Amino acid sequence: MKIKIISVGKIKDKGIFQLCSKYKDRIKRFTKLEEVVLKSGSNYSENEKIVNHLKHSKGLHFALSEDGNSFNSNDFANKLSSIFGQLSFVIGGAEGLNEEAKANCDEIISLSSMTFTHEMAQLFLLEQVYRAFTIKQNIKYHK
Amino acid sequence: MKIKIISVGKIKDKGIFQLCSKYKDRIKRFTKLEEVVLKSGSNYSENEKIVNHLKHSKGLHFALSEDGNSFNSNDFANKLSSIFGQLSFVIGGAEGLNEEAKANCDEIISLSSMTFTHEMAQLFLLEQVYRAFTIKQNIKYHK
Repeated sequence: MKIKIISVGKIKDKGIFQLCSKYKDRIKRFTKLEEVVLKSGSNYSENEKIVNHLKHSKGLHFALSEDGNSFNSNDFANKLSSIFGQLSFVIGGAEGLNEEAKANCDEIISLSSMTFTHEMAQLFLLEQVYRAFTIKQNIKYHK
Repeated sequence: MKIKIISVGKIKDKGIFQLCSKYKDRIKRFTKLEEVVLKSGSNYSENEKIVNHLKHSKGLHFALSEDGNSFNSNDFANKLSSIFGQLSFVIGGAEGLNEEAKANCDEIISLSSMTFTHEMAQLFLLEQVYRAFTIKQNIKYHK
């Protein structure tokens, strides 16, 4: 299995950037992790870049959006563990993913029904992916 | 309105601590914010301290737990804006709130059906409380 995180724009908040780095390092103990950071711009151009990227990207694509399917951490871990090959998570920019970008993904998943910044959403996602590996491998969650 | 955050143990993760501080400072522009940090210990003793504290605490108490009621950010903002007087959010320790602690609260609310660390839960809560004020006062969310 290989995980890819497709996002828009570099993370500007220093605190969130450092926390994301921490979870990325932890995830890399369990699986390959690739990051694709697309250039930020208008919401239209960001979504266009995402759609173009998705056309040439292999494997499954999960879009993150608060209107997607929600899971508890165990179900999310079960879901991830059932996937072989490449799994990409797609996080929109400041204004989120448009319908075309979502339509190019295999599933829309929701971390919360609440709206978070796209930077915070990336942090939550990485934390849950790391948690998923610790759940499936029965490893004590390192806080 | 006054907001109180009741939590257990100091936040150890430096990154989360700094992000929480940032959102606390922002919330203080809109309302009074009091923090009560109870001493960490066994899950039993932590919950006992919470229950004891709640017995002498005024106003409404919302417990945070993934099995609680979930809201989108707008509904959460509407909920907060309807409250006058003191509103306390209760966040358990590493092992969460027990049934007695929950029973001593007025409502159980969920930020996500996923499990997060109690430190991360505090960060998410503070971000949503700040977001709620920006929504109700029609202020551009400062990222």
